[in-house]
Amino acid sequence: MNKVISSLQNPLVKQLILLQNKSRERKKSGVFVVEGVREIKLALKGKFAIKTLILCPAIFSEKIDDFSETVSEIIEITEEVYHKIAYRTSTEGILAIAKSKDVSLKNFQLKNKNPLLLIAEAPEKPGNIGALLRTADAANLDAVFIANPKTDLYNPNIIRSSVGCVFTNTIVMGTTSEIIAFLQENKIYFYAATLQNSNVYHEIDYTVPSAIVVGTEATGLSEVWRTKSTKNILIPMEGEIDSMNVSVAAGILIFEAKRQRTTNS
Amino acid sequence: MNKVISSLQNPLVKQLILLQNKSRERKKSGVFVVEGVREIKLALKGKFAIKTLILCPAIFSEKIDDFSETVSEIIEITEEVYHKIAYRTSTEGILAIAKSKDVSLKNFQLKNKNPLLLIAEAPEKPGNIGALLRTADAANLDAVFIANPKTDLYNPNIIRSSVGCVFTNTIVMGTTSEIIAFLQENKIYFYAATLQNSNVYHEIDYTVPSAIVVGTEATGLSEVWRTKSTKNILIPMEGEIDSMNVSVAAGILIFEAKRQRTTNS
Repeated sequence: MNKVISSLQNPLVKQLILLQNKSRERKKSGVFVVEGVREIKLALKGKFAIKTLILCPAIFSEKIDDFSETVSEIIEITEEVYHKIAYRTSTEGILAIAKSKDVSLKNFQLKNKNPLLLIAEAPEKPGNIGALLRTADAANLDAVFIANPKTDLYNPNIIRSSVGCVFTNTIVMGTTSEIIAFLQENKIYFYAATLQNSNVYHEIDYTVPSAIVVGTEATGLSEVWRTKSTKNILIPMEGEIDSMNVSVAAGILIFEAKRQRTTNS
Repeated sequence: MNKVISSLQNPLVKQLILLQNKSRERKKSGVFVVEGVREIKLALKGKFAIKTLILCPAIFSEKIDDFSETVSEIIEITEEVYHKIAYRTSTEGILAIAKSKDVSLKNFQLKNKNPLLLIAEAPEKPGNIGALLRTADAANLDAVFIANPKTDLYNPNIIRSSVGCVFTNTIVMGTTSEIIAFLQENKIYFYAATLQNSNVYHEIDYTVPSAIVVGTEATGLSEVWRTKSTKNILIPMEGEIDSMNVSVAAGILIFEAKRQRTTNS
């Protein structure tokens, strides 16, 4: 018989609400909330430790078997409690408490001798981070580095906008200077996307160990990326405006690298 | 001396609020509201007729000269009125009333003998439409076709998310069958982006008259596009998920076409 919670005053319910809303709480406790069937499945696939599942039987309609192998605790909640905790408007009646991963650079090891990496400096908007992670998943990049991060990774808006790709990518966080040192040590060529004094992006050879570096739409990349990079690259802008959506630009650059690696291999 | 409006009950103020919020009002009156310095400048550049400028002197800090050539009426409003009308949170104290363009297919003529076109079927999210229009501007496409449109073009969220590229692109609206007939008559090859039974996108030759066709993330393209297209194309997905953000996917496809046209010309 599963435990059933119906009170909004229950301490677990209060903690779940804090985990959903407060980055500080996620950092302090080392856990976060995953919402939705697909997202929880991708978290399990990405080897995130999930011990507790929270179900709302009034809403949840799938089989529980797919999840229960690694799960040691299943808690049932009422609809009222569920709607208080759930972040999304259209939801599936299932939540999980997952353990955060240590994404610091010192724990990261390259597995591929000819890696293709994406580096995003200080991205802020969860929607942009989510779109970058979806593209990185589609391209099966070796890793996504977030330099000088502004948000924690397990923000519910990032989980949602990445449609779970925050779990399927290898993600590494560090300062810009740590990451540049890593690239130099590992002899990875890195290309900073800029708007001026740059080379057209498709004239670069990405079939060697390569990293594509993008900044924010508002401020671009910090100076050090532009001066230390192997080369600076640009997507030619032939219209009236001078900037692209960062996730679209990253998609164009990453898939040019993929194209070269497919057709030249 | 400009006219000054300070009452929220003023009929013009009421109409401006309706224009911002109601597609029906925009259609009925044939005008819409443009907000922000850059957006108004791009609307003028795109040859939109702007007769009325609405300024909030307490906020607006630029020179009016850049705008006033085509403008026959300048109205001043108080801050209270401005905040009631303005759609954006960070704004610049300037609005304009612009005349809608007729974007129907029957009024469209191709100017380029070797066009590159983007066709989006039934896009719904203003953010996606805005990102598509930004990419189309950057690539200087000959036109963007919206098949079976679900929203009117002059929705304030589309203007905002396109950062004014709704004014810099040539946009054409029509039904899917009208647009397919147009492409066939004009001997334009068209490539439907799909997930199954498709050719890898970069194996297609886009140096001939070409249109790239994308559907919505939720439902993809309707059957007729997939059966009538010159070829169906896909971006290889090598990760865990099976779909990309539509504006990222369109960016990858459009810039592959641009790359071919640059390097093969």
